[in-house]
Amino acid sequence: MRNSKLRVADIAEAALIERLVGVLGPAGQGSGQGVLRGIGDDAAVLQNVQGARLLAACDILVEGVHFDLSFSSPEQIGRKALAVNLSDIAAMGGRPRWALVTLGLKPQLEVSFVEGIYRGIAEIAGEYGVVIVGGDTTASPDRLLIDVCILGEANRMEVAYRSGAREGDMILVTGSLASSAAGLALLQEKGRDAEKEAKELVEAHLSPVPRVKEAAVLVQSGLVGAMNDISDGLATELWEIVQASGCSARFWAERLPIPPLVQQVAAELGADPLEWALYGGEDYELVLTVSGGKGSPLRARRLAYKLKRATGTGLSFIGRIFSTRDSKVEMVRSDEEVVELSPRGYDHFSGR
Amino acid sequence: MRNSKLRVADIAEAALIERLVGVLGPAGQGSGQGVLRGIGDDAAVLQNVQGARLLAACDILVEGVHFDLSFSSPEQIGRKALAVNLSDIAAMGGRPRWALVTLGLKPQLEVSFVEGIYRGIAEIAGEYGVVIVGGDTTASPDRLLIDVCILGEANRMEVAYRSGAREGDMILVTGSLASSAAGLALLQEKGRDAEKEAKELVEAHLSPVPRVKEAAVLVQSGLVGAMNDISDGLATELWEIVQASGCSARFWAERLPIPPLVQQVAAELGADPLEWALYGGEDYELVLTVSGGKGSPLRARRLAYKLKRATGTGLSFIGRIFSTRDSKVEMVRSDEEVVELSPRGYDHFSGR
Repeated sequence: MRNSKLRVADIAEAALIERLVGVLGPAGQGSGQGVLRGIGDDAAVLQNVQGARLLAACDILVEGVHFDLSFSSPEQIGRKALAVNLSDIAAMGGRPRWALVTLGLKPQLEVSFVEGIYRGIAEIAGEYGVVIVGGDTTASPDRLLIDVCILGEANRMEVAYRSGAREGDMILVTGSLASSAAGLALLQEKGRDAEKEAKELVEAHLSPVPRVKEAAVLVQSGLVGAMNDISDGLATELWEIVQASGCSARFWAERLPIPPLVQQVAAELGADPLEWALYGGEDYELVLTVSGGKGSPLRARRLAYKLKRATGTGLSFIGRIFSTRDSKVEMVRSDEEVVELSPRGYDHFSGR
Repeated sequence: MRNSKLRVADIAEAALIERLVGVLGPAGQGSGQGVLRGIGDDAAVLQNVQGARLLAACDILVEGVHFDLSFSSPEQIGRKALAVNLSDIAAMGGRPRWALVTLGLKPQLEVSFVEGIYRGIAEIAGEYGVVIVGGDTTASPDRLLIDVCILGEANRMEVAYRSGAREGDMILVTGSLASSAAGLALLQEKGRDAEKEAKELVEAHLSPVPRVKEAAVLVQSGLVGAMNDISDGLATELWEIVQASGCSARFWAERLPIPPLVQQVAAELGADPLEWALYGGEDYELVLTVSGGKGSPLRARRLAYKLKRATGTGLSFIGRIFSTRDSKVEMVRSDEEVVELSPRGYDHFSGR
C-alpha cells in the first residue's frame, strides 16, 4: 500500500501516533528544555524556571469555521494552529515553551495529510524553541479539528496584562494591519490564484507570524503598560484593553499601518481597508500602550528604532489612552469626525 | 424570551462566556490558588510551587464518539470531561490545580444545556480544588466537543512514571474493574431504564470518579514504582507499563476486582465480564506496581489498609512483574492456562 493513499481509518491509533512523533523529530523531544517526560505517559512532566510566571492558553481551529481545506495546505494548517497560540503567549510578554496538541481526525483523511499538519507544527515549534509534550488524538467524524494548548513563561515584572493601560499612555501597533483580511478576501474571490496576485497578503492569512520576538523586545524595555494580540481586529482588542483598564482609547484612522498593497486590493474588490483593520482580525500583530507624559514621543521613537533593529518589525504610534467614566474606543476619521467603535463578539455567536 | 429556550445561535459569544463564568463561580476564580490572572486575558498567569514538577495533559470528548446526548445529562458530560483529565494527573501521582476548557458548540444547542455542562465542571472542579483559568469557545456545526487541558503539580520524588516497574514488583489495582463497561452495555441495551436496574454501574460510566486522593496516599508511601490510570482497559494499561519499563507482567484473572453486580449484569446480557475488565476501559482506576522482595506482601497489605482508611477505596494484589527479553502481558486463567494479552489501540483507528 502506498503511504500517500493510506487513510486514518486504515491505521491503528498507536501506529498513527508513532508516525506523528517521528515527524516531530526534535520538536517532540527537548532534552534540556525543561521536559522531563514528553509524549508517552499520562501527562507531560515539566520543570519551569524558578520564580517565573507560568502562562497557559488554548486556541482551537475547526475545519470550515477557521480554515478551508481548499485554501490551506496541511503544513499551513499545522503552522497556524500553533502560531495563533504563540501569539497569545507573546501578548502576555512571555516565552512559549511547551505545547499539547489535540487532533480530531476524519476517518477518510489521508495519513500523509495528518503528517503534513505535524510537519507544519514541527517547523514552527522549532523556530520558536517550543516542544510538543503531549495531547490527544480522537475520531472526529465530520470535521478536522486541532486544539492546541500552549504553556509559556514570563519574568515576574514583565507580564503584560490587558489591565495595564493608564491615562496619557500612547497606543502603539506592531507591523501592519488588514493584510490577513485582505488575503482572505482575495482567496474567497479568486481561490488559489490569489497567491499570484498578492502572495504576502495570502501568506499573512494562511501563515501568520506570531510576534514572539517583538514582544520580548517590548517588555524588556520596561515601558509596556497593556498589551493584546490582534486576533479579532483592532477595535475589539483595544476595547478589551480599555474595559480591563478602566479608561478609554482614541486613535487616528490615518495613522493605522495599512500597507499600500492592501489599499490596492480593497479598491479592486470594492472593500473598505479600514473595516478590515478594525474588524477583519487574524493579523496577530500586537497592540500595546506605553507610558505617556514628558518625553514620551521620543521614548516611543527609540523603542520603535530598537524593535526595528532587533526584529525588522515596525512600530506605529496610533493614538492615546484617556480617562472617562465609561470605557470606550474612539476613532478620529480623516474628516476629523470622532466615531465610537463597538467590539466584535457582541453580535450573534460566530465562535471564531 | 425564556432562558431555557435560548439557543447558542441567539446569543453573542461574549455574553455566553459571561454567563459561563457566572456558572463557574468560585471554580473560575481561585485567589490564593496560584492564579494571578484567570479567564479574561490572552493567557492565564499562574504561579506554581517552587521545586515542584509541572504536569500537563489534554483529553477531548466528542459527541457520538465519547458520549451520547440521549444517555448523559449536561452536568454529567461536564463532570466527565474534567474527571478523565483529573485521572491523568492522578496517574502521575500529582495534584490537579488548573484547567483550560475548550468548547465546540452547535448553534442549535440550548444555552441552558451549555450552562449545565459548566455546572458539572464547576462541581467537580470544586471537589478537587481545581480552578478553571481559561480556554476557548468556538462554533462546531455538527458535534458538541469539549477538550480539557489540565495542569497539575507533583513533588519531585513522587512522580509516578509508566517506566518505573521493576522485576519482582507486585501489581496492584485500586477499586473495582469492569463497572463502567457494564454500565455502558446496560445503557445501550435498556436506555435510561438501566439506571433503575444498576445505578452504580451506570454512574461508574457516566460520572467516573478520578482517583486523585488515592494517588496522593499511594505516592506518599514511597512504595510506588509505575502507575497508570485505567482508561483503555487493564490489558492496555499494563502493556504500556511493561513497554515503558522493559519487563513483563503476569496476573491472575481470578484476582481481578470485578464486583458481583457486574458478573450478574454480564450473565444477563450474555457478555464476558473479564473482557470488560481487560478491554472495556473507562474504569479510571489506578494500576500500579509496588516494589517486591522480602516482606512485600505485608507492605502491600499495610498500604491497602492505609488507603482504605484514608479514602474508602480498596487495593487488590493481582500479579507480579517479571523479567523477559520481550515486554508482554500474561494472564493466568482460572483453568491455570497462561494467555498473552495484546493492547487495545493496535486495531484500526477508533480514536476514543
